[in-house]
Amino acid sequence: MRNPPPRALSIVGGVEQKIPTNTVARLSRYLAALDGESESSISSEALAEKSGGNAAQVRKDLGYLNAAGVRGVGYDTAGLRNQIRHSLGLGQERRVVIVGAGNLGTALAGYPGFAERGFRVCGVFDKSPRLVGTEIAGHPVLALSDIRECASSPSTMIGVIAVPAGAAQIVADMLVAAGIISILNFAPTPVHVPPGVDVRRVDLSTELHILSHRLLRSEGTG
Amino acid sequence: MRNPPPRALSIVGGVEQKIPTNTVARLSRYLAALDGESESSISSEALAEKSGGNAAQVRKDLGYLNAAGVRGVGYDTAGLRNQIRHSLGLGQERRVVIVGAGNLGTALAGYPGFAERGFRVCGVFDKSPRLVGTEIAGHPVLALSDIRECASSPSTMIGVIAVPAGAAQIVADMLVAAGIISILNFAPTPVHVPPGVDVRRVDLSTELHILSHRLLRSEGTG
Repeated sequence: MRNPPPRALSIVGGVEQKIPTNTVARLSRYLAALDGESESSISSEALAEKSGGNAAQVRKDLGYLNAAGVRGVGYDTAGLRNQIRHSLGLGQERRVVIVGAGNLGTALAGYPGFAERGFRVCGVFDKSPRLVGTEIAGHPVLALSDIRECASSPSTMIGVIAVPAGAAQIVADMLVAAGIISILNFAPTPVHVPPGVDVRRVDLSTELHILSHRLLRSEGTG
Repeated sequence: MRNPPPRALSIVGGVEQKIPTNTVARLSRYLAALDGESESSISSEALAEKSGGNAAQVRKDLGYLNAAGVRGVGYDTAGLRNQIRHSLGLGQERRVVIVGAGNLGTALAGYPGFAERGFRVCGVFDKSPRLVGTEIAGHPVLALSDIRECASSPSTMIGVIAVPAGAAQIVADMLVAAGIISILNFAPTPVHVPPGVDVRRVDLSTELHILSHRLLRSEGTG
């Protein structure tokens, strides 16, 4: 290449960083599929089958990692797993704090996939004096006011909002004040954060609305 | 129009059906924002602010519904709410069955947003004899084997899989056998279904991986 790459495409650890979000989501699923794979190599067809996708898409997605399969053999399973883990920022274990020790927070804290996929829940926080000091899914419930003390290297952590809508903004503010810049919001409301803080929202009603819209289409044409 | 519309763009209730999924997801958020709106009209800017988006996108999205705002006034709140509800297939109340009465199923069954957003949980099912006959979030827990009897008009219902990965495929098979063709899968594994059955998957690890990937980028350039 004669020109240096532009800043937005900076290279970290040999992996080009500009990967579309939909591809990142699929890489996550490929990783889950690879974690259950005992063979030393895997074809794009097999990986597609295990992850619920299609082979051409698999090859295209893995192209972002410069991962090359061998014709008739496939990808080296262990090597591919490492490349995906690296691209997902899992070269180090990612720590997660969960705010809200209700049913959703409890479900998240006990989610068996987290540890397998490179995440460690390092704190469950709640404001309720009734819950603080108890234990859920093996994690002690801590007072919400202690977030700041518990968050060492907060800029590498992910904060999860699992509280009712009315409390979501306050919790987001507390996470940001503790130095956390990456937030997953399960509350059914948007939260406002300063520039530089990344929020992803999982809205359960939205998922149902998408299915409902598609049902309407199938009813209309059925 | 001189030619009839192609089948894929069939018109139901005056609303053109071919709306991108990302737009449908945002329509869901606009509906949530409108439900909290007391004014009789709302500008695209105000709707963007309340739903965490931007005004140009709001106008573009609402264009799919042929919803026209009045310059300097905005959209009629009640009319827009009805148009969005209609496009999301909420002209009728959508019934939801939840399979899995663990923490996640309990969180879903008690989710306050469901009823407000047009969904009615009409059954929570579990295979555990310890849970069947108990009540969670106001819903009796029913035996998994009773799904088929409970699902009247199953083709208009949505089935939610909230069980561990190892049980997800069996549950998907039971939902399909009961006639349900629209499934939301929270288990951390893909499920295989026959053609004509629509599955959306919410994978919590995937959401964390997307945030982790973005953190890696910010760490690399920071």
